[in-house]
Amino acid sequence: MRVQRGMPGLLDTDHVLRTIARDLAGRFTGVFTPETVERYVFESYTALARTAKVTTHLPALTARFAADRLTALAQAKGAAPHDVPEVLFVCVQNAGRSQMAASLLNRRAAGRVHVRSAGSAPAEAIHPAVVAAMAEVDIDLAEEFPKPLTDDVVRAADVVITMGCGDACPIYPGKRYEDWTLDDPADASIEEARRIRDNIDDHVRELLTELELSP
Amino acid sequence: MRVQRGMPGLLDTDHVLRTIARDLAGRFTGVFTPETVERYVFESYTALARTAKVTTHLPALTARFAADRLTALAQAKGAAPHDVPEVLFVCVQNAGRSQMAASLLNRRAAGRVHVRSAGSAPAEAIHPAVVAAMAEVDIDLAEEFPKPLTDDVVRAADVVITMGCGDACPIYPGKRYEDWTLDDPADASIEEARRIRDNIDDHVRELLTELELSP
Repeated sequence: MRVQRGMPGLLDTDHVLRTIARDLAGRFTGVFTPETVERYVFESYTALARTAKVTTHLPALTARFAADRLTALAQAKGAAPHDVPEVLFVCVQNAGRSQMAASLLNRRAAGRVHVRSAGSAPAEAIHPAVVAAMAEVDIDLAEEFPKPLTDDVVRAADVVITMGCGDACPIYPGKRYEDWTLDDPADASIEEARRIRDNIDDHVRELLTELELSP
Repeated sequence: MRVQRGMPGLLDTDHVLRTIARDLAGRFTGVFTPETVERYVFESYTALARTAKVTTHLPALTARFAADRLTALAQAKGAAPHDVPEVLFVCVQNAGRSQMAASLLNRRAAGRVHVRSAGSAPAEAIHPAVVAAMAEVDIDLAEEFPKPLTDDVVRAADVVITMGCGDACPIYPGKRYEDWTLDDPADASIEEARRIRDNIDDHVRELLTELELSP
């Protein structure tokens, strides 16, 4: 039986997270209490730590994830700008389909929509073939990471697009839902990843037309 | 492309969750704002919906999960009783090992500790062989369910015991950590599940001795 006590080196993480929370609390003054922001930072960290393989950048990813969730929550309560449609892509792992769709829509919409993505069971990292296939069309996914689906981002969305995650996506009234049938690029070859990428791009262009934002 | 709009039947879930939040807000008056409680209820629902297969009882499970998380958070901030040691068991799926350990410790401790369990990647349901093996020692797991690991329950714990979840468990200073090496009862036969159960029970009795609460 291994018994560890104290682990003083890890005091650092706690300290870093509190610093992140303090910074974010400043950004959300008058919208959320410092306690709410700190809760979001700590829960976001734990949620990412549950699945992320490489934990070196976890505090930095936590800062981005928590900031985005708080922004979504502020939008949902009318306390942050919501000038363009919010589109949320949800797949199982947030490591392939939803990441490709988000980045392709983001580029094609050029500011006319805001895009988020999440997974019902996030993977450890984005699939390498997906990263490679997107790099071929000059989209860099190096800064992206799989994130669990949270209530706040669903609540902030105007359009929710699911891809193979079945019933795992909570459904709220008043939103537009679509389900795209796509192959899964997990363990795909680069050729398969390219084909899925182009298929997703067709759907993205169709979506822009439906949203009356012609590509 | 399937397009669904409105889904009026699901208005019900939103309404049920708001009712749960109102009830819980009453229980935590003076400790948490109604907004914090509502956030916990909605995020707890989404977290369970991500992985749960059977969604019929999801609002009822959400109410229990959110209440327990809020209690943990209140304990961590000194606003709820913390009279006995809090022990948290963490495995990957919260569907076998950590459920068995929690229920065995709960029975042996007979009120001298408080026990929680969670998983880094929760399964859809508790493994059938585990339910059967526990039923043989008169422990009914019918009311239990796999829950994701959250910051609040780690924060409230005095003792964190991990079982095969590797680095997924966030570590806080000042706690006692143990890692138990156990076989995984996923897909186990009833004979294997019994052996794992008895092995866990040995660890549980040892833990009670270490905590100076002899079995």
